[in-house]
Amino acid sequence: MQLSMIGLGRMGSSMVRRLMAKGHECVVHDTQAALVLALQKEGASGSASLADMVAKMARPRAIWLMVPAAIVDQALEQLMPHLDPGDIVIDGGNSYYRDDIRRAKTLSARGHHYVDVGTSGGVAGVDRSYCLMIGGEAEVVARLTPIFAALAPGLEAAPRTPGRDGAPASAEQGFLHCGPHGAGHFVKMVHNGIEYGLMAAYAEGLNVLKNANVGQRARVLDAETTPLRHPEFYQYEMNLPEITEVWRRGSVIGSWLLDLTASALQKNAQLAAYSGRVSDSGESRWTIEAAIDEAVPTHVLSAALYERFTSRGEADFANQILSAMRHEFGGHVEKKTGGAQ
Amino acid sequence: MQLSMIGLGRMGSSMVRRLMAKGHECVVHDTQAALVLALQKEGASGSASLADMVAKMARPRAIWLMVPAAIVDQALEQLMPHLDPGDIVIDGGNSYYRDDIRRAKTLSARGHHYVDVGTSGGVAGVDRSYCLMIGGEAEVVARLTPIFAALAPGLEAAPRTPGRDGAPASAEQGFLHCGPHGAGHFVKMVHNGIEYGLMAAYAEGLNVLKNANVGQRARVLDAETTPLRHPEFYQYEMNLPEITEVWRRGSVIGSWLLDLTASALQKNAQLAAYSGRVSDSGESRWTIEAAIDEAVPTHVLSAALYERFTSRGEADFANQILSAMRHEFGGHVEKKTGGAQ
Amino acid sequence: MQLSMIGLGRMGSSMVRRLMAKGHECVVHDTQAALVLALQKEGASGSASLADMVAKMARPRAIWLMVPAAIVDQALEQLMPHLDPGDIVIDGGNSYYRDDIRRAKTLSARGHHYVDVGTSGGVAGVDRSYCLMIGGEAEVVARLTPIFAALAPGLEAAPRTPGRDGAPASAEQGFLHCGPHGAGHFVKMVHNGIEYGLMAAYAEGLNVLKNANVGQRARVLDAETTPLRHPEFYQYEMNLPEITEVWRRGSVIGSWLLDLTASALQKNAQLAAYSGRVSDSGESRWTIEAAIDEAVPTHVLSAALYERFTSRGEADFANQILSAMRHEFGGHVEKKTGGAQ
Amino acid sequence: MQLSMIGLGRMGSSMVRRLMAKGHECVVHDTQAALVLALQKEGASGSASLADMVAKMARPRAIWLMVPAAIVDQALEQLMPHLDPGDIVIDGGNSYYRDDIRRAKTLSARGHHYVDVGTSGGVAGVDRSYCLMIGGEAEVVARLTPIFAALAPGLEAAPRTPGRDGAPASAEQGFLHCGPHGAGHFVKMVHNGIEYGLMAAYAEGLNVLKNANVGQRARVLDAETTPLRHPEFYQYEMNLPEITEVWRRGSVIGSWLLDLTASALQKNAQLAAYSGRVSDSGESRWTIEAAIDEAVPTHVLSAALYERFTSRGEADFANQILSAMRHEFGGHVEKKTGGAQ
Repeated sequence: MQLSMIGLGRMGSSMVRRLMAKGHECVVHDTQAALVLALQKEGASGSASLADMVAKMARPRAIWLMVPAAIVDQALEQLMPHLDPGDIVIDGGNSYYRDDIRRAKTLSARGHHYVDVGTSGGVAGVDRSYCLMIGGEAEVVARLTPIFAALAPGLEAAPRTPGRDGAPASAEQGFLHCGPHGAGHFVKMVHNGIEYGLMAAYAEGLNVLKNANVGQRARVLDAETTPLRHPEFYQYEMNLPEITEVWRRGSVIGSWLLDLTASALQKNAQLAAYSGRVSDSGESRWTIEAAIDEAVPTHVLSAALYERFTSRGEADFANQILSAMRHEFGGHVEKKTGGAQ
Repeated sequence: MQLSMIGLGRMGSSMVRRLMAKGHECVVHDTQAALVLALQKEGASGSASLADMVAKMARPRAIWLMVPAAIVDQALEQLMPHLDPGDIVIDGGNSYYRDDIRRAKTLSARGHHYVDVGTSGGVAGVDRSYCLMIGGEAEVVARLTPIFAALAPGLEAAPRTPGRDGAPASAEQGFLHCGPHGAGHFVKMVHNGIEYGLMAAYAEGLNVLKNANVGQRARVLDAETTPLRHPEFYQYEMNLPEITEVWRRGSVIGSWLLDLTASALQKNAQLAAYSGRVSDSGESRWTIEAAIDEAVPTHVLSAALYERFTSRGEADFANQILSAMRHEFGGHVEKKTGGAQ
Repeated sequence: MQLSMIGLGRMGSSMVRRLMAKGHECVVHDTQAALVLALQKEGASGSASLADMVAKMARPRAIWLMVPAAIVDQALEQLMPHLDPGDIVIDGGNSYYRDDIRRAKTLSARGHHYVDVGTSGGVAGVDRSYCLMIGGEAEVVARLTPIFAALAPGLEAAPRTPGRDGAPASAEQGFLHCGPHGAGHFVKMVHNGIEYGLMAAYAEGLNVLKNANVGQRARVLDAETTPLRHPEFYQYEMNLPEITEVWRRGSVIGSWLLDLTASALQKNAQLAAYSGRVSDSGESRWTIEAAIDEAVPTHVLSAALYERFTSRGEADFANQILSAMRHEFGGHVEKKTGGAQ
Repeated sequence: MQLSMIGLGRMGSSMVRRLMAKGHECVVHDTQAALVLALQKEGASGSASLADMVAKMARPRAIWLMVPAAIVDQALEQLMPHLDPGDIVIDGGNSYYRDDIRRAKTLSARGHHYVDVGTSGGVAGVDRSYCLMIGGEAEVVARLTPIFAALAPGLEAAPRTPGRDGAPASAEQGFLHCGPHGAGHFVKMVHNGIEYGLMAAYAEGLNVLKNANVGQRARVLDAETTPLRHPEFYQYEMNLPEITEVWRRGSVIGSWLLDLTASALQKNAQLAAYSGRVSDSGESRWTIEAAIDEAVPTHVLSAALYERFTSRGEADFANQILSAMRHEFGGHVEKKTGGAQ
């Protein structure tokens, strides 16, 4: 079927290529003409403006936005005057699900349809395809099935879950209508919350392994340093590239994130290219806020998020307070120099 | 090569079968004669006693213990009188790595060798094979390579990590000599610590999804209940079997643990067979103790462990204290009945 | 000066009494006539309706609302038609600071003033007085100083902080203008977030003490139960009423919350009156949401909140997922019965 | 009664002064002669050697060790040859309770008595006296009561807990026999674990207040930075010295630790003297290990400890792993520069 894509960054462009490869007709638009041109050469129908874009499409249109979450509202505002009743706008970015609910109302009032699609797969999605979590009206989502099926990995991407047989459900192909407006991004939000937790579990564990040689390090003997009672039990020099590699086969903790970790460690076992200042996008924060609204305990997911905050220096003042308290009650002076502790 | 297996439970028996299928000669022993007999019928050499077992083996012997961690010391004590210098004893269970260090010393004083092997794969290992993390003397471990290679999944079990080529390293086949005595179980210990963290991340996230309908529930309006400010944002009925299924293909959080979760939810979306009383084996506890000795922060791994403690009622008294404090300063009386909060 | 109080529950009534004792003139109102009557007998000027109340006051009026957070908006709506320009409305309850900002705008548009006051002290405040955290226009807050000074504990309630001398600052008397609208409740919100963290620290620690006898308990020996390696180190029967009592004098962890804990344990060392189902009011949740917006890590404050959620069964489904995963990969069956673990 | 003190650092010296002021006779010893001399001038009986010290004492002797935990064993070894049956050795430092159990056995085999005393109060104890948590044989501890009573703050240091009357229990005077050998240091260990939790709760909360102005800061707009949806709600410049001061009077979170925090902030609101590198002594680590052995969840106490580890850079490698993973799956490049996030 015909689809137009607005936003031809890495994600948008590779989605267009995948759709065309599966026989779909793509009209593409971006503020950067060079990106449009590149896809035009590969068979897409380029458009110089939104007006041009909609003119090139049969009605009712399906228009996919693949732009940063921060400018979706602006993009919608520019797009809306060009839309006709029955047209569908799909937000495939990382929007907050509450924005979806609001936008769907606005578009609905004008006779348009809105579909939110949480997309997982990252830049690797070019090869691995995309996992799609979809929110919106059932009938509209159904109409877009050929598009979703083309972007998703398909049944063969994973062994079939025991107990599932017959015609594969859409989830088994890698896309799912999760519920009404916002449901797609809600599920993607929690997906990312889980992602942070998984990443933190690996990172913490590997840090424990890396420091299994702590018994070999010289240790300061003063009242500010806890003695290591049994240095003889911490004499291991662990080879993290090999350990993450061995876990990839047969172990309970195998995963795609582990594959990536093994890959990064294979390039450089010290991870020297990274300083450890870790950004967070919004989804994990929103997951915690949802958890709190729902009164659902999320010790692990919160801790994973806070570790990222802390990596960026956001705990520094709290730590200064601790040092100040210690000085007040015990006369403790901060140790400035490092060394094993 | 020849190997004897002591302990023919699910893990031990399936390892023997796998070894025989790869052409190795197995002498088997268990206190339950029926288990010995079963494997004897499949081609193993059964033994009625430890004396009988060692008599059937060429020297130097390789003897694999696959018994509960709690009885390894007892098994070793019974076995040692039958050993000759140069014999190798392998502990393939879930021993604490500090016990390995001690046992290796004891055996070494008598001229025997000790090898610790952390084995991941669970009951599914029958089909998936085992991921083996090995500690001990390099030369001894090298001698056992044919056994490890037969038990491990092999190179083809996962796509090769970018940057790795040529003859596959042992880690790429699914087994790894991690370091001296105890190193195998140390790596397995941290592996399990990570496992708990991963499991908790999925569990917490799915709980957030399950409660995405909290806005539909009637809520008590009293000073003891926090009002939900925006019930309109929590109106989703999430289908967890389908959501975990869709994540299996193309998403960043795909993993074997996710496959298992999808499988469990496919059987019963309410998980009605489970009450949520979660045991923990020792490895996660030891991981935290190692982290503390090393001064490595493990917020996520600890939280995952504590959630299991709490699931078994171990926080009850702490909660009673909180209620008592609230009563003392605010006259708050505990709410006995449920309802959304 | 003259003040009217709307809402004569425990907090409102005792504030009126305190104000009258300090020579202020109080006009009181409540939907329950009996509460009005009671204070009238003690010297307050009772009012049968809001119209009656405002009629009894000199302009510009100062009206203090001491009603549940959930009905403040409703109370304001009923009150506004009776107000004149320059009148001040004070919300002394537990409002969300964002509501303060909104309400202040609404009132300001009509020429009224709004002041938010976070009040700590609980039911004990009758004797201990109240700690007041105030938000609003500086000039308006200044005008109310006699009221705040009368409600607050005064300088003598604590030893003076070293470095402070001369005329005592308002903070040293127990009340503080924290900033513009909402600042009072913002500070109170974080105050309560801290309170949950403090309470949890005591509760967790006392739980560790209570279980210091775990080595005396019979322990199941199976693969689902982690063995206690050194029962000989857990043979203590700790006397919690005496321990919390001894900490009250000279220790670093002395506090009013500890005093209350000692008091509760003195009444019943088993806290048999409490089941451990712990409510949370909204402030701690809002504190976490603010922390997340600010990217400030709050491991401890979040954990304290989640422990309350968990005490009410909100982690049950997450735990069922853990049990289901364990069954899938390891064939583990949940242990139903208790016993030390 | 007569007591000798070994170790005349700040704690030891001030204890001697306090004992002498209450009429006790002190024999003092230290490797630094100047410290001995100083107390000698104030009335203590100085000793040039351990032999000299014991010679100056009547039997059975009571000898208090106030030396760093790391050298207690060494001090005991030097002391033991000089002891006679019935002599009592008191360890008033921060020993691990398991060492107490071991030492008590060693001393007992030679006919000596051992008493462990956990001492809280810090350097401030000179003025505030000490809270004493005591382990050992009941009869021996009873014999030392005059010493404990002299060091402890006494009944008047806190209002009496409701329900307590008649002759004050020892806990009400500030010292407590907690149980057999090790019980004193066990209770002190948990005391310190709680202390870390309390400190972290204040520190985190104050950090949230400090950042209540985050809406005023310029924010980068890129995919690596989570947008702040409502900057208008974070426009507060909080005055932390005044806020901690106001909480000292009448609030639920009043405590000695809060007093100290207010004092530190009064000196310098930015805490410019501190970098935020926070040491930890061993007690909190041992508390977590005890909690894990007991299967008691300690989310808050662990988080407080881990925050200290992290303040010293111990999470850096874990964070590098997170950055590396993000680069692998999303092509994310670390943001090097700061700015509000």
